Amino acid sequence: MRYLIKFSYDGTNFYGFQKQTSKRSIQEELEKAVTYINNKRKTKVTSSGRTDKKVHALNQTAHFDLETNITLDKLKKALNSLLPDDINVSKVKKVKNNFHARYMVKEKTYKYYLNMGEYDPILRQYIYQYNHKLNIDKMKKAINYFVGTHNFKAFVSEEAQLDNYTRTITKVSLKKKKEILEFTFTGNGFMKYQVRNMVGTLIKIGKDKLEATAIKEILEDVSKRNLVSTAKPEGLYLIDVKY
Amino acid sequence: MRYLIKFSYDGTNFYGFQKQTSKRSIQEELEKAVTYINNKRKTKVTSSGRTDKKVHALNQTAHFDLETNITLDKLKKALNSLLPDDINVSKVKKVKNNFHARYMVKEKTYKYYLNMGEYDPILRQYIYQYNHKLNIDKMKKAINYFVGTHNFKAFVSEEAQLDNYTRTITKVSLKKKKEILEFTFTGNGFMKYQVRNMVGTLIKIGKDKLEATAIKEILEDVSKRNLVSTAKPEGLYLIDVKY
Repeated sequence: MRYLIKFSYDGTNFYGFQKQTSKRSIQEELEKAVTYINNKRKTKVTSSGRTDKKVHALNQTAHFDLETNITLDKLKKALNSLLPDDINVSKVKKVKNNFHARYMVKEKTYKYYLNMGEYDPILRQYIYQYNHKLNIDKMKKAINYFVGTHNFKAFVSEEAQLDNYTRTITKVSLKKKKEILEFTFTGNGFMKYQVRNMVGTLIKIGKDKLEATAIKEILEDVSKRNLVSTAKPEGLYLIDVKY
Repeated sequence: MRYLIKFSYDGTNFYGFQKQTSKRSIQEELEKAVTYINNKRKTKVTSSGRTDKKVHALNQTAHFDLETNITLDKLKKALNSLLPDDINVSKVKKVKNNFHARYMVKEKTYKYYLNMGEYDPILRQYIYQYNHKLNIDKMKKAINYFVGTHNFKAFVSEEAQLDNYTRTITKVSLKKKKEILEFTFTGNGFMKYQVRNMVGTLIKIGKDKLEATAIKEILEDVSKRNLVSTAKPEGLYLIDVKY
């Protein structure tokens, strides 16, 4: 039987989602728990995608196959009792055997939080502590250039070797609540460092190091990737995955 | 010259405010920084009061004396550059030499946050994860019994040996935002474990283990202190100190 789980995690003490030798990862913690439940048969967990070191998630998704028979409620309880306190499974459901948590993603939403006000020691691992004013109007104009179908290669980590860098962003927003900025991006897929690079470049625009139109220019000409900056990971949240 | 500082901290990785041999404390970190600025002359830092292990603070206050001459702005910057990233000084001002951060407190405010909804791994160290429904109406009725001048001995840690357990609480509130409860207590002083014991007992009322009137009964009769429960520290915040 194939199962789909929804889960959230505090990325602070992980080296990212993906399993890595001798480094703590979300995937490894999930596979340990699922393997234990599956009568200790080594079981792979496939997520909707990776997140970087220190990046958080609400409603991340993954699938795995179990040979044991267990009710959904018991499976959720067993997972949460086996998982460390910085991961929580909020939903478990049965899916068809051809369901795939990564290949079948239709839409993902990421949020990024930035504090323009006084340094906040309590939220330092959950909101990027920029601690300076930014030009919001200019950033609001700039963020809209991301909407549409574009070749995002200039905003993707150079490490990534992909066949196709074309993705569609359907919705963006930038909201200000007191001194906290909340960036939201919804699209059909996001590549390595893409959201952090989009936000980092928006910050550069907000501090008047670039014009708002720079986003359009970089999207149209990958040779301008040197204008791109990477925002710190701790402000980033994978918020939702739709199939 | 005597200085008053306002500062906030993430209590998660501290063994409390008070200095303790070979355990990380907020007082020790502050005294290390202040001593360094005061030309390495050993300098004491006196706060408005202690907070327990894992308890957070916004706008905590403390005073200390410096023999060096330094502008307020430079002092703030020097402190923050010397302090670890889980403490931040937000304000520095000069005060009279007879000012005392503890003895002159007129009013303190504490808040306590509790999550009745799904376990949240991201906020686990900042909001107490109770993760069950509580009877809010009953707790709202109960919390009002704390208002006024009472002998709070039944709500104070038995370790505390005080001459006088009478304190005045001027304002309380219990608000619900989605599944998060926010308890607020304002008064002229709070003793060891007092807020955690007040909240812990309110939780017991909210889960129908006690009647709302139990608060009144315990306040009137210290022999009923066995009815008191202590809430976990991670939901508690010292929010404000007034002189």
